[in-house]
Parts: sequence; C-alpha cells; structure tokens
Amino acid sequence: MVSGLTRDAALEILDFVQKAIELISDDEKNNFINALISAHKEGRRVFIVGAGRSGLVAKAFAMRLLHLGFSVYVIGETILPPMSKGDVLVAVSGSGRTKSVVAIAEAAKSLGAKILALTSYPDSPLGKLADIIVRIPGRTKLAKEEDYYIRQVLGFHEPLAPLGTLFEATTMIFLDGIVAELMHKLGITESELQERHANIE
Amino acid sequence: MVSGLTRDAALEILDFVQKAIELISDDEKNNFINALISAHKEGRRVFIVGAGRSGLVAKAFAMRLLHLGFSVYVIGETILPPMSKGDVLVAVSGSGRTKSVVAIAEAAKSLGAKILALTSYPDSPLGKLADIIVRIPGRTKLAKEEDYYIRQVLGFHEPLAPLGTLFEATTMIFLDGIVAELMHKLGITESELQERHANIE
Amino acid sequence: MVSGLTRDAALEILDFVQKAIELISDDEKNNFINALISAHKEGRRVFIVGAGRSGLVAKAFAMRLLHLGFSVYVIGETILPPMSKGDVLVAVSGSGRTKSVVAIAEAAKSLGAKILALTSYPDSPLGKLADIIVRIPGRTKLAKEEDYYIRQVLGFHEPLAPLGTLFEATTMIFLDGIVAELMHKLGITESELQERHANIE
Amino acid sequence: MVSGLTRDAALEILDFVQKAIELISDDEKNNFINALISAHKEGRRVFIVGAGRSGLVAKAFAMRLLHLGFSVYVIGETILPPMSKGDVLVAVSGSGRTKSVVAIAEAAKSLGAKILALTSYPDSPLGKLADIIVRIPGRTKLAKEEDYYIRQVLGFHEPLAPLGTLFEATTMIFLDGIVAELMHKLGITESELQERHANIE
Repeated sequence: MVSGLTRDAALEILDFVQKAIELISDDEKNNFINALISAHKEGRRVFIVGAGRSGLVAKAFAMRLLHLGFSVYVIGETILPPMSKGDVLVAVSGSGRTKSVVAIAEAAKSLGAKILALTSYPDSPLGKLADIIVRIPGRTKLAKEEDYYIRQVLGFHEPLAPLGTLFEATTMIFLDGIVAELMHKLGITESELQERHANIE
Repeated sequence: MVSGLTRDAALEILDFVQKAIELISDDEKNNFINALISAHKEGRRVFIVGAGRSGLVAKAFAMRLLHLGFSVYVIGETILPPMSKGDVLVAVSGSGRTKSVVAIAEAAKSLGAKILALTSYPDSPLGKLADIIVRIPGRTKLAKEEDYYIRQVLGFHEPLAPLGTLFEATTMIFLDGIVAELMHKLGITESELQERHANIE
Repeated sequence: MVSGLTRDAALEILDFVQKAIELISDDEKNNFINALISAHKEGRRVFIVGAGRSGLVAKAFAMRLLHLGFSVYVIGETILPPMSKGDVLVAVSGSGRTKSVVAIAEAAKSLGAKILALTSYPDSPLGKLADIIVRIPGRTKLAKEEDYYIRQVLGFHEPLAPLGTLFEATTMIFLDGIVAELMHKLGITESELQERHANIE
Repeated sequence: MVSGLTRDAALEILDFVQKAIELISDDEKNNFINALISAHKEGRRVFIVGAGRSGLVAKAFAMRLLHLGFSVYVIGETILPPMSKGDVLVAVSGSGRTKSVVAIAEAAKSLGAKILALTSYPDSPLGKLADIIVRIPGRTKLAKEEDYYIRQVLGFHEPLAPLGTLFEATTMIFLDGIVAELMHKLGITESELQERHANIE
C-alpha cells in the first residue's frame, strides 16, 4: 500500500477536488451542458483552447467529445477548420488571464462564437468575454490565497499540490463528470464511445 | 451545488481513485521515485511517452518535471534531443499494448535507457520491457472486468466513467502525488517551481 | 540582395529540388493522386504520419488536404477518429525506417488501410508495407552517398544542406505541386481553399 | 519523369522562391544571424512561434537550431521554460497579423526578449513589435496582389501555389540557407548535427 508524501498529497488533492466539485454551481453546469448539446444538435463545431496543464485537461475533454460524436477541434493543432457564427469555444484557464487563450477567445467572439469559460476568476479578461462561465474552485498560479471561496475548500494550511494542480485536477474530474451526463442525455453507450475511439496510436 | 450525473460520476471517479491509489505498491512507487532522482542527480535526460488521454497525463507530469528542474522531453514534440545509455523513459499505457508506445520503449531499451512503465498490465508487451513497473489499477479499454484486482476497487456495477477514464484519473493524481514527494526529497519549494514555469503562453 | 552561405545553400537546395522533382516517376505520382481522389470521393478518411522534419512536411500537406475538403487527420494529434478498411495512410519517411512511422503503417495495414509511402528507399520496411510508393530522391540521414540515383542529382561535392534537408524540401515542394493538381482535378478554386482555412489561430 | 500540374506548380514555386530569396535584404539576413549567434554565445534561449503552415516551417527551423546546439523551445509545446530578458523570439507570420503570434510577441517584448520577425509585412502589428525584421517576399493569405514588391517576383499571372504557399516555401528554403551559414560561422559539422539529432522517433 502506497505511503509517504505521494499518498498524503494524492489524498489531499482528492479531498480538495471532492469539496470543490460540490461547490460548482448547478446552474453553471447546466448552462455548460445545454450549450454543448445545442451546438451538437445544430451541427455546430466545438473548439477547445487552453495552455499548459490546463490545455492538457482541455484536450482530454476534446477527445471525449470526439468519442461522443461531436464535431470538435483543438486550437493550435494541424487539423483546424474555420470557426463560424454559432460555433462554440470551450476555453480553460484558471487565472482567466493566459494571453494566448484570451486572444483566441476575443477572435472567436468577433466571429460570432459562443464562449464557454472554465476559470476560477469570473472577473478576469476571459471571464468577461464569456457567454457562459463555470467557476472552478482552484488555487491558481496567480492566487494569493486571500480568496474566501478557495479558503472554504482549502482551509488554511499550505497545500501539498503546487501551482495550478488543484484547478487542473478539479477541472479534469468535473469534465469527466460532464462526459457521463452527456452520455446519458444524448443516449450514447460506452461501446458507441469505443467505436469512435482511435484504433491506431 | 452541482448535482445530476456530473456529480455522481465525479464522486465515483474520486472514490475509485482514492481506493486505487492506496492499492499501488509502496515498493513500486519508491523504485519509480528513486530512478527519477538518480537520473536527475546524474544529469540524465528523462523522456516521456504516452498516447491519447494517457499521453496527456504523461505530458502534465513532464511539465512538472521541468518545473522541478529535470532535463525532460516528450517523444513526438519538436524539441527532442537524442537518448543515451542511462537516460530514463517514462511510458504511460493502461493496456501496455499501445503500438507507438511499445515501439518507442523497444527503441529506448536498445539505446540503453531505463524504462519506467505506468500500466495496469505488468504482463503486457510494455510491462515486459520495463525495468520498473508501477501497476496502476484501472479499467482500461481492453479490460473485460474479470480482473480481480480491479473488482476489488470497482465493485460489480457498471462504472459511470467510460473507457480508460479511471486509469487516466488515477495516474494523474498519483503522479501529482509523486511531484509532492519529489519536491520534498529534492528540497524544492513551490516558488522555485514557479520560477521555472512558462511565463509566456 | 542576400549573399553569403545562406544564398549559396538556398540556391543549391533549389537546384537539387528542381532536378529531384523531375526524377520522380510520373506513374507513381499519378497512383498517389488517384488513390487520394478515390478516397475523397468514397468518403474515406486520410491519415497522415511522419516524424521529425518529415512529419512537419506531412502536416503541411495535411492542412492543404483539409482546405481541399478532405476528411484528414494527423496521427498523434488530439482529434483522431478510428481508421477503417479502405481509409488511406500517407506516411512520410526518407529512410523508410523511422520506428514509430513503421509501427503505425503496420497497424494501419492490419486495419485494411491503403498505405501511400513517400520515401527514398522502396526496399525499406515502410516501402515494403506500402501499396503505393512515391520515391523521392533525397540524401537522407542514413545515406552513404553511394546511391547512384542520388549521385545523378547531387554530383559529387558535399552538399550545403545537412541531414534530411534535401528530402524534406523536395517532399514539401512536390506535395505543394500535388495540391495544385488536386485543385484542378477536383475543380476547387483558391477561394474555396480560403473558405476552409482556419480563421482563428 | 513527373509531368502535369504537379510538375508545373513545383517548378513555378521553385522559380518564385529563387527570385524571392535573392530579393531578401543582406543586411536583414546578417542582423538575423548575428542576433541568433549572440543569443547562443551568451547562453540565451531562443523561442520559436508561428501558426498554421508558417508554424510548421518555424518548427523545422527550431529542430535545426537544436541540432546546432542552441537552447531552443517552441511556444505551445509541453516543454517550455520561462523567457528572460535577453532571450530571443523568432516569430514567423506572412501577414504579420496572426493573433496568437502577435499576442506572444507582445508578451515576449514585455519580458525583455528580442523579437526577430520573418514576415512579408514590415508595417504589420508583428513587424512594428520586432527588433529585427527579415522581409520575406510572399503572396500571403491577405495579399491582394497589388503589392509591387510581390509583382516583381510573380509577374502578373495567377499563381499555381494557393494562399501562403509561396511565403512558406520561401521561408523554409531561406531558413535552411541560414542553417548552412550558422554551421559555417559556428564551426559545426554535419556529424555534430547528427549527434544532436533525435535517435528515437
């Protein structure tokens, strides 16, 4: 059985994520899911953007949207079609200030896309651009730990999870929850996901 | 407060990951950490490989190794120096059968690198190539759910987390735990991580 | 007006590429184009694979196939659907021995895909797997310069273009030529390409 | 011997690139090379940024800088250290208006990096930010063909090379010329490049 700081930190992260998930607004979650489902039903494209570890979490969600049958693309990859009015951009940034993410969100907005932001800071540049925000509790790179919202979750000790780890872990688990709800609402089984999974990698 | 299947699935994933982390062998974890620390102290390079969502989890760990001061590279990216005898390859594959990952591990082995595998299947092609295995409980794409090891964790109902989700989430949280232990063992503070974090993205 | 070794090397590369393009077999070129057009007309997917600088050249071609309206994907990127019988894999490897490229081509072959290889070595592992080969003259990383075919083009002095440069440049220009011929054969105008070009990047 | 539009287009591209290379300013080329050599000798990092096919050309150059022994990184990839005052950013954008490239160049400028821009438009947002510009003739996506500079090279017929092809091809060949000049000025042989080339891919 695993021990040491690896175990302590993993358990602390899991404890944080559990509390953080419960703090996420049900309305925000429903708006997020409904916007994705509408886009899918109307044949719109979903574009995904994020930088650093948040970008990796965003890509993990993009893969599942592909498996769910969405028309989905990742900003910055080779195969990237044009964005049209009515398309959706899912932007992930804990701080809401990541320059390239904000630049893409601005461009998407001007093209008539709907911006769905996952961020800890609704008042950030990204938050202000967004049509729909899901506020994810998380101690981000910028956080000074004075944020009461975070304090509720973290308590007052210095966490074992450095930098944006808690935001990233919370977002990843939350989005995997979203996948389960999308499967149910779209009536898609696991074997249908499997059929759309890459078989050459 | 979030509700619905998003909440149910997220909590189920967290519950699984907590039990799964505890099942990971302490010896395997220590071997993994010691191999990384030795590589770092001897000035060796650490290469990271994985495909699909496992590859994203691997990249998230690669970023933290960079922040910890490791000389680390991701197979398949633009900036990739040659591998030498004594370097380390960290390979992540739930099934241990991902073709490109196995091909890279074989090539790395023939160059004299030490192979550290994170997989659910120690008897897989990747597992057999590995010098050090960390067995990660996880229902992978290939799993038929007859595996007693997994049953211990999952119980007998169909999980809300499709395909490799549980392996990926467990590996991500486990590796974030490893980061905490590496910080402690190498005496690196969060602000030192911050100093090595990308400031342009 | 530019001078110095930059100019000398650029002109030498251009001179090589011009001669090399003319040496490419018209039959091989036609087979390559016809296989792509058939795949497109039959609604098949085209997958692209390559490593290193050859991989970048392959991706540049993938972008143009997207602009031409093909259903095209790059192995190793986030958005990667499954491959089916009748799909096409375009594999670029000067040596024909790049391990990950050969592993992918083997997997694709076993799934019933048609393998189109761009390589300097028809007798290489990749060449032997391929259904259609376009032999691209090029001094590759492995070349010992004893190859008469290359000697015809290079003459006998040491080139200013190191490693795979000549293969990569020849393949890039050749594939841009292929794009022009595909535009003509499919009746696609430049403004139609433009309409499918990413507008957010 | 290859024929048809593939041949015609390839030869036209080569003809364009040859004329375009000769139009590049020798002073601009020398400034570009000297800035790279200074960065290398002072132990500075070189960062590379570009989007779309221009981004691929930029990455191909990044690989060669790695082979030449530079400390080089690509914006947007997993392994990305922080940028410091005195580091160099090489930004490639035909139009000089690509949003993410301009956003990165602005951020780099504010961190004290030296901006080297390869663009057809010195008066573009990127051009105005740059410390050193190399003006690359090229018919870019934005060009209306009224540009006398381009007309000099292209003549007046509609080219067979769509969108940014001529800019991309010219930049790629020019940068491969730069590699030859860097090899000479730094006294680096092809076998030294080979020793720094990835051996696992």
